[in-house]
Amino acid sequence: MNSIKIFCPATIANVSCGFDVLGLCLDNVGDEMVVRKTKEKGVVISKIEGQKLPLEIHKNVAGVAVLELLKNTRTEVGFDIEIYKNIKPGSGIGSSAASSAGAVFAVNKLLGNPFTLHELVPFAMKGEELASGALHADNVAPALLGGFTLVRSYHPLDIIKLPAPDELYASIIHPQIEVKTADARSVLKQNIPLQTAIRQWGNLGGLISSLYTNDYELMGRSLHDDIVEPLRSLLIPGFEDVKKAALHAGALGSGISGSGPSIFALSKGKDKATKVANSMAKVYDLLGLEYDLHVSKININGIKEIN
Amino acid sequence: MNSIKIFCPATIANVSCGFDVLGLCLDNVGDEMVVRKTKEKGVVISKIEGQKLPLEIHKNVAGVAVLELLKNTRTEVGFDIEIYKNIKPGSGIGSSAASSAGAVFAVNKLLGNPFTLHELVPFAMKGEELASGALHADNVAPALLGGFTLVRSYHPLDIIKLPAPDELYASIIHPQIEVKTADARSVLKQNIPLQTAIRQWGNLGGLISSLYTNDYELMGRSLHDDIVEPLRSLLIPGFEDVKKAALHAGALGSGISGSGPSIFALSKGKDKATKVANSMAKVYDLLGLEYDLHVSKININGIKEIN
Repeated sequence: MNSIKIFCPATIANVSCGFDVLGLCLDNVGDEMVVRKTKEKGVVISKIEGQKLPLEIHKNVAGVAVLELLKNTRTEVGFDIEIYKNIKPGSGIGSSAASSAGAVFAVNKLLGNPFTLHELVPFAMKGEELASGALHADNVAPALLGGFTLVRSYHPLDIIKLPAPDELYASIIHPQIEVKTADARSVLKQNIPLQTAIRQWGNLGGLISSLYTNDYELMGRSLHDDIVEPLRSLLIPGFEDVKKAALHAGALGSGISGSGPSIFALSKGKDKATKVANSMAKVYDLLGLEYDLHVSKININGIKEIN
Repeated sequence: MNSIKIFCPATIANVSCGFDVLGLCLDNVGDEMVVRKTKEKGVVISKIEGQKLPLEIHKNVAGVAVLELLKNTRTEVGFDIEIYKNIKPGSGIGSSAASSAGAVFAVNKLLGNPFTLHELVPFAMKGEELASGALHADNVAPALLGGFTLVRSYHPLDIIKLPAPDELYASIIHPQIEVKTADARSVLKQNIPLQTAIRQWGNLGGLISSLYTNDYELMGRSLHDDIVEPLRSLLIPGFEDVKKAALHAGALGSGISGSGPSIFALSKGKDKATKVANSMAKVYDLLGLEYDLHVSKININGIKEIN
């Protein structure tokens, strides 16, 4: 195999009660990437379409992630990367993760899979570090592994793949505003009340149970975030109204995707998810805010090869 | 049916990372109770053997729990309760919960099951309130439902029954000291670092996943408590040594049972759990501390009728 074309899915991190530990993978929202082996050693990003992003490999998340992979294996070949971005950087649905995870997935495949998907996670995290300053895994893990993933621990890194119910769909609305990750981080409090934390881990427990039992009602009852959402939602115009509209239209739950500004909702069935998405969009229509709108099944396989 | 004899199991609340939300049910450690219908309305506790506890129904957790049940249904009969205590009050393995849950289970059965097991939980919680001043469910829920239980939420009350792996055994050592629940509560901090909370809910997520997948290794990696154990363990003599001994003997994890002073360990298989229990006991033998020692399979059915 000398070249590979892949689909690099968008992802939703946190998923309400799972701040910094949960993520899920989307099915029809994502970038494409073509990676070719080259005779000359080294990594080149020869083309980026769809977004203005740096071609220099040390400044590009895909480049940094691949360099980290190559530090950990031996090869006499090099790699040429083309990136076709559909996910907007700063949207909160894992734009940098799609590139970081995609690049290491493709290179690993071209090298004959020296690493498992789990083993690729720390390489992709290096790309995330470049993008946000933090070595987080809650977008790259679901992009690589698919479905829902749990980062049980960072030290040592321990990623658990969780199942996703068959009929689960996500609706995502991305208001065209910028929320800087640094701002989204700075509104958080260093200390939280124990009682609030207990509520949060009760809900996370309920959500994880619901994934194994396909209990959509339990999922709906569990999708709450009493810790981060009340603070970060202040940075997102119309958040409360969009969330209310989603729930009113029948969503199981709704919250901030990653650090925002995208807002997600989860629903049972595609029709419901479409109705939910349209209801969310109406709020921004009334406010006169530009937005992108997505409806996607949960992608249980993660990054995949395409033709 | 005019009388019933039941086994009222001991329970382990919290289970390390699941502070205030998780509990599990034991199989061969527990009280017995005989409840008879009487022609005269009202509730009488006619006998308590094994422990000195009040016979006055308003002062006894079983009496209070049954009165709460009877407030919520109509009956022309009364009930006579005999309690045979094996679980020592104050041991941290759900002594009051066994009596509260047992009493409402028995009375419900004698009335022809007007309530589901889930519906009995709030009645039993009234007994817990008498015992500890708090309406907690993390012992009565596993006593009634069996297996592991998750209190996803208290307002509204939402109890989720979780599975328990087949070969999971608990070892419990109860040092003969008194830890007052009030003291165990007062050492807790009202606020906790967000980063510590994230670690805790990552571990809880891992533990719950392991229950569904029978992944004992993941269970072992998840059985940590960075929030409550560091504080409460100071009230339990030799805690660190007992825990180390349990882990060294091959336990998956070890921690404080409920608010202590009992220390539990979970192991795969009865032989391992027995070895673990003996290793824990050796620590107290060396310290010259009196103790009770139990090894029990996880009881997936909860309270049961016996002959």
